[in-house]
Amino acid sequence: MLVEEGRNRVVIEGVKPEIDGGRFPIKRTVGEKVIVEADIFADSHEVLSCVLLYRKAEASHWLEVPMKFLVNDRWQGCFSVAEMGLYRYTIRAWVDRFKSWRRDLAKKLDADQDVTVDLLVGAEIMEAVSRKASAPEAAMLKGFAQALRSKKRASESIQLALSEEIAAMTTKYPETHFSTTYDKELTVVVDRVKARFSSWYELFPRSCAGHSEKHGNFRDCEERLSYVSAMGFDVLYLPPFHPIGRLHRKGKNNIPKAGPEEVGSPWAIGSEEGGHKAVHPQLGTLEDFRRFRTKAQEHGLELAIDMAFQCAPDHPYTQEHPQWFRWRPDGTVQYAENPPKKYEDIIPFDFQTDHWQELWEELRSIVLFWIQQEVRIFRVDNPHTKPFRFWEWLIAEVKKDYPEVIFLSEAFTRPKVMCHLAKLGFTQSYTYFAWRNTKWEITQYFTEMNQTEMREYFRPNLWPNTPDILTEYLQMGGRPAFMSRLVLAATLGASYGIYGPAFELGENQPRVFASEEYLDSEKYEIKQWDLKRPDSLKDFISRINRIRRENAPLHYDWNLTFHPIDNEQLICYSKHTEDLSDFILVVVNLDPHHVHAGWLELPLSTLGLDLRQPYQVHDLLTDARYLWTGPRNYVQVDPRIVPAHIFRLRRRIRSERDFDYFM
Amino acid sequence: MLVEEGRNRVVIEGVKPEIDGGRFPIKRTVGEKVIVEADIFADSHEVLSCVLLYRKAEASHWLEVPMKFLVNDRWQGCFSVAEMGLYRYTIRAWVDRFKSWRRDLAKKLDADQDVTVDLLVGAEIMEAVSRKASAPEAAMLKGFAQALRSKKRASESIQLALSEEIAAMTTKYPETHFSTTYDKELTVVVDRVKARFSSWYELFPRSCAGHSEKHGNFRDCEERLSYVSAMGFDVLYLPPFHPIGRLHRKGKNNIPKAGPEEVGSPWAIGSEEGGHKAVHPQLGTLEDFRRFRTKAQEHGLELAIDMAFQCAPDHPYTQEHPQWFRWRPDGTVQYAENPPKKYEDIIPFDFQTDHWQELWEELRSIVLFWIQQEVRIFRVDNPHTKPFRFWEWLIAEVKKDYPEVIFLSEAFTRPKVMCHLAKLGFTQSYTYFAWRNTKWEITQYFTEMNQTEMREYFRPNLWPNTPDILTEYLQMGGRPAFMSRLVLAATLGASYGIYGPAFELGENQPRVFASEEYLDSEKYEIKQWDLKRPDSLKDFISRINRIRRENAPLHYDWNLTFHPIDNEQLICYSKHTEDLSDFILVVVNLDPHHVHAGWLELPLSTLGLDLRQPYQVHDLLTDARYLWTGPRNYVQVDPRIVPAHIFRLRRRIRSERDFDYFM
Repeated sequence: MLVEEGRNRVVIEGVKPEIDGGRFPIKRTVGEKVIVEADIFADSHEVLSCVLLYRKAEASHWLEVPMKFLVNDRWQGCFSVAEMGLYRYTIRAWVDRFKSWRRDLAKKLDADQDVTVDLLVGAEIMEAVSRKASAPEAAMLKGFAQALRSKKRASESIQLALSEEIAAMTTKYPETHFSTTYDKELTVVVDRVKARFSSWYELFPRSCAGHSEKHGNFRDCEERLSYVSAMGFDVLYLPPFHPIGRLHRKGKNNIPKAGPEEVGSPWAIGSEEGGHKAVHPQLGTLEDFRRFRTKAQEHGLELAIDMAFQCAPDHPYTQEHPQWFRWRPDGTVQYAENPPKKYEDIIPFDFQTDHWQELWEELRSIVLFWIQQEVRIFRVDNPHTKPFRFWEWLIAEVKKDYPEVIFLSEAFTRPKVMCHLAKLGFTQSYTYFAWRNTKWEITQYFTEMNQTEMREYFRPNLWPNTPDILTEYLQMGGRPAFMSRLVLAATLGASYGIYGPAFELGENQPRVFASEEYLDSEKYEIKQWDLKRPDSLKDFISRINRIRRENAPLHYDWNLTFHPIDNEQLICYSKHTEDLSDFILVVVNLDPHHVHAGWLELPLSTLGLDLRQPYQVHDLLTDARYLWTGPRNYVQVDPRIVPAHIFRLRRRIRSERDFDYFM
Repeated sequence: MLVEEGRNRVVIEGVKPEIDGGRFPIKRTVGEKVIVEADIFADSHEVLSCVLLYRKAEASHWLEVPMKFLVNDRWQGCFSVAEMGLYRYTIRAWVDRFKSWRRDLAKKLDADQDVTVDLLVGAEIMEAVSRKASAPEAAMLKGFAQALRSKKRASESIQLALSEEIAAMTTKYPETHFSTTYDKELTVVVDRVKARFSSWYELFPRSCAGHSEKHGNFRDCEERLSYVSAMGFDVLYLPPFHPIGRLHRKGKNNIPKAGPEEVGSPWAIGSEEGGHKAVHPQLGTLEDFRRFRTKAQEHGLELAIDMAFQCAPDHPYTQEHPQWFRWRPDGTVQYAENPPKKYEDIIPFDFQTDHWQELWEELRSIVLFWIQQEVRIFRVDNPHTKPFRFWEWLIAEVKKDYPEVIFLSEAFTRPKVMCHLAKLGFTQSYTYFAWRNTKWEITQYFTEMNQTEMREYFRPNLWPNTPDILTEYLQMGGRPAFMSRLVLAATLGASYGIYGPAFELGENQPRVFASEEYLDSEKYEIKQWDLKRPDSLKDFISRINRIRRENAPLHYDWNLTFHPIDNEQLICYSKHTEDLSDFILVVVNLDPHHVHAGWLELPLSTLGLDLRQPYQVHDLLTDARYLWTGPRNYVQVDPRIVPAHIFRLRRRIRSERDFDYFM
């Protein structure tokens, strides 16, 4: 066993954040902080100095910030990430001879011990430091050394030894030759702010003509932009808009054979009219798409498009690249299946093919093609059915040149798989939110996502519904259920989305009892939506989205705290800014059928509130204002009116003491 | 970004046990199991096969055991370590084409789907496997393939496809070409059983002459062996027995200047009579030491000797190797200090010296010297004041040739430092046990040591007292306190030790109030102990050690479970063998002054006990037997008699139903 340098005495371990031993990066958005902690210690009792090193990945030099000692050998440092792209960080620490000397000197002086020799040791330290310092500083340090050696003026020497002057000079040139640098360089992926805070709206462009018999196109869809924009969303997500296969096309309600006029599922991509780089002729041309994208942007809506890496049986690839698919012994191609379920209108790529590299490159070219069309957000369909290595490669390849690209993972699958996709690079992830309905479920799930290591790589995007998911809760709970799930999604998560207009119109008829599929699902047919229906939730949604925009605490996930409330049907939580200046308190009635009331309890002292002073809570949903005092307060929520409160807390209430003639 | 093989689809992560990403080994003793768990998953829905690979470090081939699926993508495998030394383990997993095919086939058959093509796919799999099989097996596999292709006898083909025969043959030759092997080889240090289960007794040989005026020697000490052995200990630990420095020698009660006749501290090692490889002339010769070691062994006592890597100022090293010490600007050598405390009789090595390699090698030669004298257990004094890298190197160097060597770390320091020393190789570690007195403290501490990752590398050795530690609890609590602390040490921990005869004679006078130092400490003078005092705890200790020997559950640490008992002064816990056949239940009264009673609660169903059947508990301390029924039972403990119960549980109570003429 070879030990190259046995004099490195400092150990750095237990570094956080660090995902799987540094195998994966953590995530941040521009302007956020990275707080790094580590256990740092050496043998014996000397004083350590620890610094956090960080740099942009492409920079050649480290920047350095001192770490501070917390407790129990734990140290903490912090840096901010100002630009998109990759940052690296690591830690360096060393036994600090000067600080140790200074501390021990002070202790000995306190105990009235003779320090003659100690001052001589100090002089040696000054001399050693002077050899590294600039000429004027070296001269000063040598002067210090001389003064410390001067036996005549002992008390002056001591004063000098303990001075801030000598400390500042010495700290500038630490003796780091036996320093320990942590053996890993850890990575931060820095995304733009929208990666963290975004409000998504999904719609089917083909349903935008306003009539179920008429195939809408991008021009019709432009008409819909002001409607979506007025609700306050900032991402408009379109299901695939490519040519749809005709072979084995599915009919209405997912029946195996479509009639001649039926439009099929947009996820059955590709026909003789083109594949993943083409636009469905009935929706328009590539030019129409680009125009639509521009119009959307003018409405403050960034487009997100769907990346579904799969083909209809008549996709051009099946002819041009048969080697990318799995052919069965009977000469037919292997369609998608999850026995006993069959998806004959969709054939998966065979990622086990010997031609996998060619396939990967083609798929990358699809993403780059849409990036050339100015698309920067991709909602990735079923990433968990394609190899992890492929995604890791693809996302890194794309973000190398386009760090602003956002990939949303639609992996409704097992928890470890969802997390792994997030680790390997997906910017945001769909979650189990749709199936977390009780107070216990919500509290557990959001605590796991926001308070464990998971938060470092997994950015939740909460969807109360999708074209595939009409939850039992929405089916049974009616309008109040839609409202409460909206409030939960929009306030529990910094990113959320709805599939509309089904959502705002409260569409909740399942195809069959206990199924989560919609009756007459828009996936298989053109829908006619009455956007002006008086019971539409569009105004409520607008209000929610305005509250989100205007209240900074709702732009973040990690600041979520749950509070006790003595009714199982009421959930109470808050979010606040780091400086506590903004505080949003949410109470939701989880029971869509009955009025519920209860006493909630706030940690006033943590919030910096005086226990004896009244404070005002302003319900941003109803504009009602309440004066509360003390931690325990009563709330009552009627789901038939509004199933939630979103309070903004005002700390300062004017009283007679505010008059200038008071006292 | 280069991806060499994009077709490896399986991810292996979250492997446990794995210390600091595999930087450190886990520990086991001969015959123990290593249970390995990991998150293992791939994209899509196919079936995986996972194997745990292990080998002795020096072996060139892996052994392989299948892992079983637990839940939530978690897999588990297990192997046993039969020999001392190092083992390695890792994991391999792959998408199992055969198992996936078989599962899907069964699902399709259940759904009455046509499986013609599936049988052809199966035939292809058989043919692929046949290419790797031995000739007779290949022939059989080709036969299977042919049978599966036979359209005429479809039902027979199906039966064959699902048969165990075909499964067994195929599993034997899995298609692992796209398998994933975990990227780390993890290490197990396997020690002998005594590393886990040991009972230590510490004594000062110089006090063995039976008179405080007479310096005892190893011959006198031989007389003491049957006394120690009768108490049932198996390790006899001697403080340093080397020549003691004369320069700055400490006097009685640690006063700075010793009188001419005073014996000094054994930890001030070295004088003109020799250093770390010499025997104190008043104790005898090296030959005497060897004879003593042999005699001890005949009494079932293995010697543990003290490794204190520090010198008295007149140690020969200070003359021969001045470069190993730190010299101060005034020409004096730097003695040990922790300002404002000074230890002028001890000078530390300067591990920062440019001659560190020479120093390391000399220190290793000391250990090897005593290994040549047949010593195999070293209690290492203050390892936390020497560099971590040194210990890691030294222990590995020694154990490479002598895997049976045990190093006990005497690091009474900060938790992270104690843990790090254990991680880097110390076989056992002193703990904070001496200062854990309340039920909450004990429960927390032992839960941390036995139920967290810490148990993988940190083997506690529990000491109620040492020559440096006379706790407040022992000072205040008198005889019952000594008894209860003994029971706690001996039953909470598989390894424990006492410093005697101070312990069995209940020595509890501190030098000054609130100090943990003994009055007239044996560290600085020869003590005269009256071993025959009627209040000696020696018989009680014998009984405890016999109970330990005879009851396998007490040979282990990880099997400790705490149980509720409704009195804060009573603590209740159990240990059982893995098969539940042996079960020891301990109740200790933590209050040395008053009788306490309470109701304890046992998890009967976990123990495999019938809730309605009576069971017997046999108090091994008093031989009393009680019949209990149900989980809640009453106990009362009087500290003036015995402050604890150590129950052995007997499951089966005879009743009239046992008569053969019953019924």
